[in-house]
Amino acid sequence: MSHTIREKEKLVLRVRRIRGQIEAIERALAEDEKDCGDVLQMITAARGAMNGLMAELVEDHVRFHVLDPVRKPTAEQAVAADELVDIIRAYLK
Amino acid sequence: MSHTIREKEKLVLRVRRIRGQIEAIERALAEDEKDCGDVLQMITAARGAMNGLMAELVEDHVRFHVLDPVRKPTAEQAVAADELVDIIRAYLK
Amino acid sequence: MSHTIREKEKLVLRVRRIRGQIEAIERALAEDEKDCGDVLQMITAARGAMNGLMAELVEDHVRFHVLDPVRKPTAEQAVAADELVDIIRAYLK
Amino acid sequence: MSHTIREKEKLVLRVRRIRGQIEAIERALAEDEKDCGDVLQMITAARGAMNGLMAELVEDHVRFHVLDPVRKPTAEQAVAADELVDIIRAYLK
Repeated sequence: MSHTIREKEKLVLRVRRIRGQIEAIERALAEDEKDCGDVLQMITAARGAMNGLMAELVEDHVRFHVLDPVRKPTAEQAVAADELVDIIRAYLK
Repeated sequence: MSHTIREKEKLVLRVRRIRGQIEAIERALAEDEKDCGDVLQMITAARGAMNGLMAELVEDHVRFHVLDPVRKPTAEQAVAADELVDIIRAYLK
Repeated sequence: MSHTIREKEKLVLRVRRIRGQIEAIERALAEDEKDCGDVLQMITAARGAMNGLMAELVEDHVRFHVLDPVRKPTAEQAVAADELVDIIRAYLK
Repeated sequence: MSHTIREKEKLVLRVRRIRGQIEAIERALAEDEKDCGDVLQMITAARGAMNGLMAELVEDHVRFHVLDPVRKPTAEQAVAADELVDIIRAYLK
């Protein structure tokens, strides 16, 4: 992955938060500390966070790997990439 | 949309089938001819068909608009586009 | 489907709007009147509308068919049904 | 959550596997050991596993909390619950 160091740190923090959410789900299931509806809500929240991470990484993938920043994309390619990113974000909301 | 005529015909047939599915849902709701579970299954099937159409069109969009076939993509770009298409298909299954 | 007449009319209007969206997609594909990004956005919007319809019908299904309104549900069942509906709505957003 | 001990153990193992997947994503992002396409595939796999867990728990929620096993559901309720579970599984595939 070729990201700036700052971007990478933000992504790692994001995954770490998701890990925390999964650990809380594990505890809730192992220790019967929550009722079923609460666990379902915790999974729903973790899924939202994973979708957000996915959207972020797919956007990077489109902009830096499918497009090649070294070979400047044409205006049409840049528009097509923006459209694609918007639609992926809508699906991952 | 710049597709070959044959490809375009296949896409139009696909949307027409989806329209038929939606019309059947409309009749089922208007005429009380089906029970609720049947209607839910009909919507689930129509959604599957729309996801399939979406996957097809997004793949075309990546290959013909985000990539620019005139400017031959690098090997890295081609691999990145394949990875993107695979992942989008997995999400739209 | 056992709904009040008013509710049924609202559902039918909803499906009719979705049919209009699908017809517009069909025209856009058949007549090359839109570019690929526009068609992708039209499908994204139709999918959103179908998810909204699905959420509505699943909620009715939970409240009127999985629960049996004649046999008054217990307070625990009512809470569990509300939690389920909330989660389904979150997934269908 | 009121599950048999055996069921609970299986659920906990499932979440633990998901945690392992998330930890692998965290390492991949932190250490630049994978390329972007690999990370996207790892997230796609983790999402599939979370959807499977969600489907399992939603099914339990419908059968043991929305339905009340103590008050035997009518045949209609049992059918409606089966339909609901099938549709949720289709959406979470």
